[in-house]
Amino acid sequence: SAERVRQFGTTIFAEISALAVQCGAVNLGQGFPDFAGPEWVKQAAIEAITADANQYAPYIGVPRLREAIAATWQAQGWRTVDPVTEVTVTSGATEALFGAVQALVNPGDEVILFEPFYDAYLPDVTMAGGIPRFVRLHPPGDGHATWWFDPAELQAAFSPRTRLLMLNTPHNPTGKVFRRDELEQIADLCQTYDVIVISDEVYDQLVFAGATHIPIATLPGMWERTLTINSLGKTFSLTGWKIGYAVGPASLNAALRAAHQWITFATATPLQFAAAAALEGALHNGYYEQFRAEYTARYRLLEEILVSVGFPVLPTEGSYFLMADITPTGFHDDVTFCRYLTQEVGVAAIPPSAFYARQHDLPLLARFCFAKRPETLRAAQQRLLAWR
Amino acid sequence: SAERVRQFGTTIFAEISALAVQCGAVNLGQGFPDFAGPEWVKQAAIEAITADANQYAPYIGVPRLREAIAATWQAQGWRTVDPVTEVTVTSGATEALFGAVQALVNPGDEVILFEPFYDAYLPDVTMAGGIPRFVRLHPPGDGHATWWFDPAELQAAFSPRTRLLMLNTPHNPTGKVFRRDELEQIADLCQTYDVIVISDEVYDQLVFAGATHIPIATLPGMWERTLTINSLGKTFSLTGWKIGYAVGPASLNAALRAAHQWITFATATPLQFAAAAALEGALHNGYYEQFRAEYTARYRLLEEILVSVGFPVLPTEGSYFLMADITPTGFHDDVTFCRYLTQEVGVAAIPPSAFYARQHDLPLLARFCFAKRPETLRAAQQRLLAWR
Ligand SMILES: CSCCC(=O)C(=O)O
Ligand SMILES: CSCCC(=O)C(=O)O
Repeated sequence: SAERVRQFGTTIFAEISALAVQCGAVNLGQGFPDFAGPEWVKQAAIEAITADANQYAPYIGVPRLREAIAATWQAQGWRTVDPVTEVTVTSGATEALFGAVQALVNPGDEVILFEPFYDAYLPDVTMAGGIPRFVRLHPPGDGHATWWFDPAELQAAFSPRTRLLMLNTPHNPTGKVFRRDELEQIADLCQTYDVIVISDEVYDQLVFAGATHIPIATLPGMWERTLTINSLGKTFSLTGWKIGYAVGPASLNAALRAAHQWITFATATPLQFAAAAALEGALHNGYYEQFRAEYTARYRLLEEILVSVGFPVLPTEGSYFLMADITPTGFHDDVTFCRYLTQEVGVAAIPPSAFYARQHDLPLLARFCFAKRPETLRAAQQRLLAWR
Repeated sequence: SAERVRQFGTTIFAEISALAVQCGAVNLGQGFPDFAGPEWVKQAAIEAITADANQYAPYIGVPRLREAIAATWQAQGWRTVDPVTEVTVTSGATEALFGAVQALVNPGDEVILFEPFYDAYLPDVTMAGGIPRFVRLHPPGDGHATWWFDPAELQAAFSPRTRLLMLNTPHNPTGKVFRRDELEQIADLCQTYDVIVISDEVYDQLVFAGATHIPIATLPGMWERTLTINSLGKTFSLTGWKIGYAVGPASLNAALRAAHQWITFATATPLQFAAAAALEGALHNGYYEQFRAEYTARYRLLEEILVSVGFPVLPTEGSYFLMADITPTGFHDDVTFCRYLTQEVGVAAIPPSAFYARQHDLPLLARFCFAKRPETLRAAQQRLLAWR
């Protein structure tokens, strides 16, 4: 195989999900709901298939979906977006991220990543020949109520060779939602160094009490240099549909489209129509409020369960995930712990070390997903209690 | 944007399809059917959505689909394929091609393409840093009944730096089906020079009287060095579903998977189940025979129409396409002709020059798609007759 893929193992999600299936473990690892997406969205997909919307979509996405994405930005007061030139539909946020990096990064360009980072970002960068520069996110403590970074470390990561910064808010795996003052620091540096931001905001509708999601593209001067990536999967509990999209200025969309047309060309047509129906419906039917309320209950239940079995839990501001402190278990590394938990206890979790390039000074945590039915979370509780 | 995408225009298909919509032209350009896919396959998709098969598929594809692909190879007497290690599902053949080249080609490696080539191949190669080497396919004539290549030119394209050869049979845009003796020449050289073949065989079920499709992977010594790419879109008239796949030895699948996991990660789950149902059903219900019979009738109708309006037609052995000689029109280049035909005559066709890297000595042709209802082909005839 080529150099660019030679070092890769399989994603941690594939590894742990396969192990979970093999061991019959309750899967709180990979981030996907174990309940159905909304009935009206499924119906819209069925109608599109029935109506023979089954041939190639335009490679930039079906107009109705691009318009629904623009309407969603408008409705949240973020920006008036042109659906023709400023929105591109992709085969999941994963493809949008890969394609955007291919389209923007030349070999030798530097790319800043907050560490831990969603695991695909690093291969995205290295497959494009980019050089990653890392900025640590530190766990709450030392007077910080949430995960934090050192502004001096951020500043030091920038150089004249910096081309791109990859942001993720709400952040996977930590659950951090970047605050306005933090986004302003990032925005200032990106403008000073003429750096583009790829901002992965797939959990934008999934923030909990006290936190507010702010798209970095809405900060002064940032629209022109930001490509915001999102998807339908997490927000509509349909992770298997693989409908992603990018919103940003025409220039950045043009770059992404130039790559996208050769990477997948287009995205599943009937599911695009259903995605349009989902976004259109959610503008008026209270879906997002209900979604957040349900997820808040799931979050609280998993928190209660983890605490009840003796895991201190870190606060989550957004996303599907809770980080638990595994120091009390006596394990010394999270991979060994997560394999043990999956195989011996029957509960799958993801080791956050999979999201670090530099393995020194890692906090000892495990990531648990609460996008699950209460019965599933309770079943995990039974197994954890039996073990502890 | 990055160097690797800077030269790209938009695909010819996007350009001509957009122009066709804008001008209300009968679209015989981009290759997609204007009729519905099989009802039982659509029903299978509806059932999968209803049954909540809507979360992430395994990144290599759902087991049932990989098994149906293996069963299809078996049923045709091609090979016993291991669905676990020798099959990978991708988001269309487009992604399989892009990912395979990313996974196999290092910067500076040479890649042999037959010219004309399906337009994505060249960006696939250059985005991976590969150096394309071209071998001309010449139109029928000079004693050749079909498109042909010069064996000496093929031999001369190989060098110690050759890493890959991209084959396409049945061939788009020419309709050529490579004969066994031609495949043997290719196979011999690939073994001599230790070259891998990526063989795009998406029209494998669409061959016409007299021609036989032979997967190059079935030639002696070729399985170990061939990744065969296919998709459901063309064969089941569902081009918008974007279900592709690769079949080949475990080593080549492992390389592709290493790239695929970061490019799209996984492919639309409910459509994978429907794709499995399609392949399973077609093994027993006579679908392929009916499909070929229907397409033979479409091919003959379009041929008759083009001849009736004064276009000599080249023989097609397989694929959705007919090449017509446009010399009688007095136009001197195919792009001008196809734009004129789309805008002024109201019939969209694709200029084959879009499939050539070297623009010298091109035959003067236009590519017409016959994957259309008889009414559509007749409507094109009306317009062509009105013009001629
Ligand atoms: C692409 S599978 C991973 C799903 C996910 O976002 C996660 O578990 O973090
Ligand atoms: C990816 S759109 C092109 C469809 C096609 O295969 C063709 O028209 O040649």
